[in-house]
Amino acid sequence: MKKFLNDPVNFVDEMLEGIYGAHRELTYVADDKRCMVTAKPKAGKVGIATGGGSGHLPLFLGYVGDGMLDGAAVGGVFQSPSAEQMYQVTKHIDQGAGVLYIYGNYSGDIINFDMAAELADLDGIQVKQVVGNDDVASSVVGEEHKRRGVAGIFFVYKAAGAAAAEGLSLDEVMRIADKARSRTRTMGVALSSCVVPEIGHATFSIGEDEMEIGMGIHGEPGISRKKLAPADQVIDEMMERIFAEQDYKQGNDVAVLVNGLGGTPMEELYILFRRVAQLLDARGVKAKHVWVGEFATSMEMAGASISVLHLDEELDRLVSAPANTPFFKHFAS
Amino acid sequence: MKKFLNDPVNFVDEMLEGIYGAHRELTYVADDKRCMVTAKPKAGKVGIATGGGSGHLPLFLGYVGDGMLDGAAVGGVFQSPSAEQMYQVTKHIDQGAGVLYIYGNYSGDIINFDMAAELADLDGIQVKQVVGNDDVASSVVGEEHKRRGVAGIFFVYKAAGAAAAEGLSLDEVMRIADKARSRTRTMGVALSSCVVPEIGHATFSIGEDEMEIGMGIHGEPGISRKKLAPADQVIDEMMERIFAEQDYKQGNDVAVLVNGLGGTPMEELYILFRRVAQLLDARGVKAKHVWVGEFATSMEMAGASISVLHLDEELDRLVSAPANTPFFKHFAS
Repeated sequence: MKKFLNDPVNFVDEMLEGIYGAHRELTYVADDKRCMVTAKPKAGKVGIATGGGSGHLPLFLGYVGDGMLDGAAVGGVFQSPSAEQMYQVTKHIDQGAGVLYIYGNYSGDIINFDMAAELADLDGIQVKQVVGNDDVASSVVGEEHKRRGVAGIFFVYKAAGAAAAEGLSLDEVMRIADKARSRTRTMGVALSSCVVPEIGHATFSIGEDEMEIGMGIHGEPGISRKKLAPADQVIDEMMERIFAEQDYKQGNDVAVLVNGLGGTPMEELYILFRRVAQLLDARGVKAKHVWVGEFATSMEMAGASISVLHLDEELDRLVSAPANTPFFKHFAS
Repeated sequence: MKKFLNDPVNFVDEMLEGIYGAHRELTYVADDKRCMVTAKPKAGKVGIATGGGSGHLPLFLGYVGDGMLDGAAVGGVFQSPSAEQMYQVTKHIDQGAGVLYIYGNYSGDIINFDMAAELADLDGIQVKQVVGNDDVASSVVGEEHKRRGVAGIFFVYKAAGAAAAEGLSLDEVMRIADKARSRTRTMGVALSSCVVPEIGHATFSIGEDEMEIGMGIHGEPGISRKKLAPADQVIDEMMERIFAEQDYKQGNDVAVLVNGLGGTPMEELYILFRRVAQLLDARGVKAKHVWVGEFATSMEMAGASISVLHLDEELDRLVSAPANTPFFKHFAS
């Protein structure tokens, strides 16, 4: 295992110490570093919280900040935070306007977030939930509720965060989050495994000339393993599945996220985007907003995902709004 | 070779197509995508240009934008751009106030930038140069002029870019760039090699349990190869060399850049920063500005570097100023 590590048992806690040291605009509650909240709460605003396993930076806690989220609870590597941790975050970020949970569709997270919402309800805090399920590869059309949440949740955070910053109500912020969720699709491809620090070896093995299309961000099996193809062919196959999901018409606008899974250089991500742009152009669809970089990783996994958000006027406005978090900054566009 | 690629010969040009497609605020001159300039020039401002080999994103062209640079010429992977390319960028970004070149201390770059400056001089464009040499490991104290430029050049761009944005003269911008250069030190450590696409195999080999301290960002030999140590020990060794370079007194402020070389996950970079912060604290030195992420990479190389800028009041002000480039955004702090 080739990592910068001390005792693997302390991986998450030492990472969190580093994050709090580097980013003073973040703090934590309940004397638990895994219960992160913004140090600059906004009175009266709907609170937005997320959470999930560690090992996916910038997910989840990297989006806590202006114009995005108010709090995040994180667990061990690839492990859900507890209901108690989510509840502590919820109590702290509620400003009287209620709290929206936005998180990915994983059974451990769902159980704990549901329980946290119940605990908050006993305190009179109104909680609503939107569960990200953008990963096209993880279930067929008609069974979207079985799909995993992956990098496309970034668009849900961005739209809902901007809506909350505009002062919209919990119902409105939830409506917008749900719309962004329902119009986002992601396809991923992995070239190598990650290594969970406490385990110390690769989560799965994959041949030196192989790729796995549709693999999840914890190494969940994808839909096909085959010989690594030229970049354009990989994108053609991924985008064909994304195009089949929504009625993208000539003249439509989309936002595109090209996400590196951790070990893939930025140069390659731009080579992938080049082909995405060609395919969108060919359909007369405009990539109005484009982000390329690492947004939801799997530690050192080599690979990438493409997320497409089918914009409407409202989502266009909200995605363009400024945001300032430790891991994601955007000037009004 | 496990990369998202089409024909390796087109690696740089396809990457550039992707970058121009994603970032409309960038454009190019001389009908050559490798001659990048900002699409939003500011009348009367001192122009700042950089350049160097491809394969280091966000270096070099990723810092072209508001509050940073006005242009960049890039060569093939790890190859200098030509004098003609640098000259074309220079001609375009000169707004009558002259142009400052800021680039790293590599012989190919020096030859080509010198020649570009001579060509510009024939056109009556005043050009000055600051050559980054922050890499402590590449030569001893007293022979700093032999040192390579690595990730610490980010601080030189940031300070000089803010100075030019304030409307300072070429002499002043150069003075500030040179001050930032002279007060910046970097130490790096590599865990794995990169693969140059057209070559197709690792640039160097390194054992599964080894690290190389002081390795350059093209795989230049470092100062010691040894068994991979716990993260804190690695940082202790690196910071000891940085501390020995400048007179950091109790109460001094520094800016810290923890830079991933490409393949190292962000989680590990924060574990490294945690220890840097502890060592600074122990000396009563404050990490007033901290950036953690990928700033100067070597494609998929696993490894990291630590850069420390010894602040004074002027550098503090300039480093805090806003910047908005495709790869680096900073709200006024």
